[in-house]
Amino acid sequence: MKFKLALALVIASANTAAIAGQAEDQQVKFRQSAYSFAAWNCSKIKNQVVEHPETFNKDQVIAAANSIAAVANSGLGALYGPGTDQATGWKKSRLKPEFFDKHDEVVKVATAFNKEANELQKVAATGDIGAIKTQFGKLGETCKSCHDSFRVKDADAK
Amino acid sequence: MKFKLALALVIASANTAAIAGQAEDQQVKFRQSAYSFAAWNCSKIKNQVVEHPETFNKDQVIAAANSIAAVANSGLGALYGPGTDQATGWKKSRLKPEFFDKHDEVVKVATAFNKEANELQKVAATGDIGAIKTQFGKLGETCKSCHDSFRVKDADAK
Repeated sequence: MKFKLALALVIASANTAAIAGQAEDQQVKFRQSAYSFAAWNCSKIKNQVVEHPETFNKDQVIAAANSIAAVANSGLGALYGPGTDQATGWKKSRLKPEFFDKHDEVVKVATAFNKEANELQKVAATGDIGAIKTQFGKLGETCKSCHDSFRVKDADAK
Repeated sequence: MKFKLALALVIASANTAAIAGQAEDQQVKFRQSAYSFAAWNCSKIKNQVVEHPETFNKDQVIAAANSIAAVANSGLGALYGPGTDQATGWKKSRLKPEFFDKHDEVVKVATAFNKEANELQKVAATGDIGAIKTQFGKLGETCKSCHDSFRVKDADAK
């Protein structure tokens, strides 16, 4: 009986671990999707505003800026549950474990990202290509700041 | 000389194919990310409006509806280049090859998705939970309609 009870506990524990792992993997999959969607939209703005301003299309840049702001305002914090630094979404998470120990710095970089993304949305609506370029640069700095602090560097980083 | 020329042509052709493949894989990765980001936001609305209306949070539902509308308005058509039915993003594309032969039907389902997503964004802003539920149902029908016509059914479909 003792053996059966112990076995049952081991199985129950393994099942719980498996369920927790799935939830964490799902969070990582969603956050990788959110940032990839934002990255695609950033690439469109970079292309039309920085690299090839002769192709500038106001409506497309507004749509891209709306998308980046939507990502920033979507409540990404819910996708950073404990243990998600060890989880695998579409690919293994690059989140550094210290993310969970540096609450104040996390709030700071997240707030900066939100602020600059919302400002880019406003500036894009004006259609002023110079102002959009400047604001897009400010947004990029907040991305880099978070990556430098909380993302593991790897060979295929994009 | 003839052999060298033929070899050079084969290599050039292989390189072109490899580059085209990368571009198609990138398109599929971005569109899988866009739809996954939309799916996450749909799951939040489903949870707060359909399954657990006692947890309804107006600001969160507005943010989710904004995100879905941003995806719908982001110019997803640019991610459906020729050959992307055979490409692999985060995973193999489930796009049916006939997508490329049924232009009118594609325009119809894409237009319906945009219309209902934009309407959901408007309705969400009112905070009327009953109206949001109704409109969310209409949006879901456009998702299903496109999946039925243009997405391969598979065992791990989500």
